[in-house]
Amino acid sequence: MRPFVFVNVAASLDGKISDETRRQIRISSEEDLNRVDELRAKSDAIMVGIGTILSDDPSLTVKNEKLRARRILLGLQENPVRVVVDSRCRIPLNARVLDQRAKTIVAVSKIADKEKIEGVKKKAEVLVCGDEKVDLKCLLTHLKEYGIKKLMVEGGGTLINSLLAEGLVDEFYIYYAPVMIGGEKAPTICDGKSFAEKIKFKIVSIEKFGDGFLVRAVPLVSR
Amino acid sequence: MRPFVFVNVAASLDGKISDETRRQIRISSEEDLNRVDELRAKSDAIMVGIGTILSDDPSLTVKNEKLRARRILLGLQENPVRVVVDSRCRIPLNARVLDQRAKTIVAVSKIADKEKIEGVKKKAEVLVCGDEKVDLKCLLTHLKEYGIKKLMVEGGGTLINSLLAEGLVDEFYIYYAPVMIGGEKAPTICDGKSFAEKIKFKIVSIEKFGDGFLVRAVPLVSR
Repeated sequence: MRPFVFVNVAASLDGKISDETRRQIRISSEEDLNRVDELRAKSDAIMVGIGTILSDDPSLTVKNEKLRARRILLGLQENPVRVVVDSRCRIPLNARVLDQRAKTIVAVSKIADKEKIEGVKKKAEVLVCGDEKVDLKCLLTHLKEYGIKKLMVEGGGTLINSLLAEGLVDEFYIYYAPVMIGGEKAPTICDGKSFAEKIKFKIVSIEKFGDGFLVRAVPLVSR
Repeated sequence: MRPFVFVNVAASLDGKISDETRRQIRISSEEDLNRVDELRAKSDAIMVGIGTILSDDPSLTVKNEKLRARRILLGLQENPVRVVVDSRCRIPLNARVLDQRAKTIVAVSKIADKEKIEGVKKKAEVLVCGDEKVDLKCLLTHLKEYGIKKLMVEGGGTLINSLLAEGLVDEFYIYYAPVMIGGEKAPTICDGKSFAEKIKFKIVSIEKFGDGFLVRAVPLVSR
C-alpha cells in the first residue's frame, strides 16, 4: 500500500537535468513551469532527493496564487506536503524547504546524526526509515498512512533511479527542452548505477510543448 | 567549405547510448535499424569516434543487400567511406572498420605514434589533422575535397560534443527507445565537457516510431 507515484522532470535532448557544475540551469520554458505548478497543486506531496536541495534549494511550493486558493477551497492545505529523502540528514537548517509555508517531512536512515535530527525536528517532521539508506518502500507506506494518495517526485536522478529500481514509479512526465547541455559528468534524468536490465516503458503520449516536447511514459514494471 | 553533417543516434529516455560498462546494448528496434541502414546508404561517408570503435567494433557498412545494389546502380561504391576520428591512433589493426568492404579514412593528430600509423596505412588512408587532437574543421575540409558531400555521424558522445561545440552539425536524428538505462557514468548522447552556454535547437519533427519516438532537430548555430 503506497501512494500513486509520478515523476516530473525537465531535461535537455541529451537527458541532462543540469550541467557538470550542478548549478541550477533554467531548462523549462515559462509554459512548462506553469504545467509543473498545476501538477504540484494537484498532488498531496512533492518529493525530492537531498542532492536537489543542496544544489537548487527549491521551496517546492505552488507558485500560482489562484492554484493555492483553489486548494484551500477544496479543504486542502495551501501547499502540498514536502518530502526530502536525506539518508544522512545533510539538509541545511536554512533550506527553503524548511520554511513554514508548508509541512515538510525529512526522511533519514539510522546512520543520520542524532543531534542534527534534533535541529531539523524544530522545523519539520523527521521519519527514520532504513539502516544506511532511506528505505523507500517503508517511506511510501508511511506517507500513505499519513493520507498522501498522490505523490509527485521532482528528482534528482539518484532518487529517480532508486525509485525505478524498486518498481515504485507509476508514471513519468518528461519535458525535453530544445537544447543540449553536454558533459559526461552532468547529472541526468536517471543517475546512480545502470540497471542490470534496462527498464522498459510504454510511451503513452508525445506532444509538442512550447519549443520542446512533453513525453508521458509508464514503466512496465511497477509494484 | 565542409560536407553537410548530420548526426544519427539511438538513446534511452534518460539520454544514454550504453550503460556504465560501455558494452554494446541493443537500444534500436528492428525498424530503427532499417531506418539507420537507409540513412547510411544515402550518405557519402559515415563517421565515428575511436571510443565507438573500441567499445562496439562496428563495421559501419550498409546491411541491406538491396540498398548496396542501389548504390552500385547509381555509380557509387557499394558502401560509404568510413571515417574514424582517432587523435592518438589507437585503432586496433583487427578492427572491423579496417576490413576491405569499404574505404576507410583514419584521422589522427600529430601526437599519434608514427609506427602505429604505418601499420594502419596498410589497411586505410591516414589523415593527419591537428596537433594534439584531430582538428575537425581541417578534417571536414579534407573530406569535402575528397568528394564527400553528405556525412553521417554515428557517435559517440565525445565526438558529438566536439562537433557541436565547433558548430559543425547541421541536423540531428535522435531515436528515443522506450527504456531507461540509468547510471551517472553511462555514456550519453553528448559527453565531453558541458557547454559554457547550452546549445539551442529547433525541433523540426517528432514522430512515434515503433515503440519509441524519433526527433529531428537542427542546432541553431552551425557554421
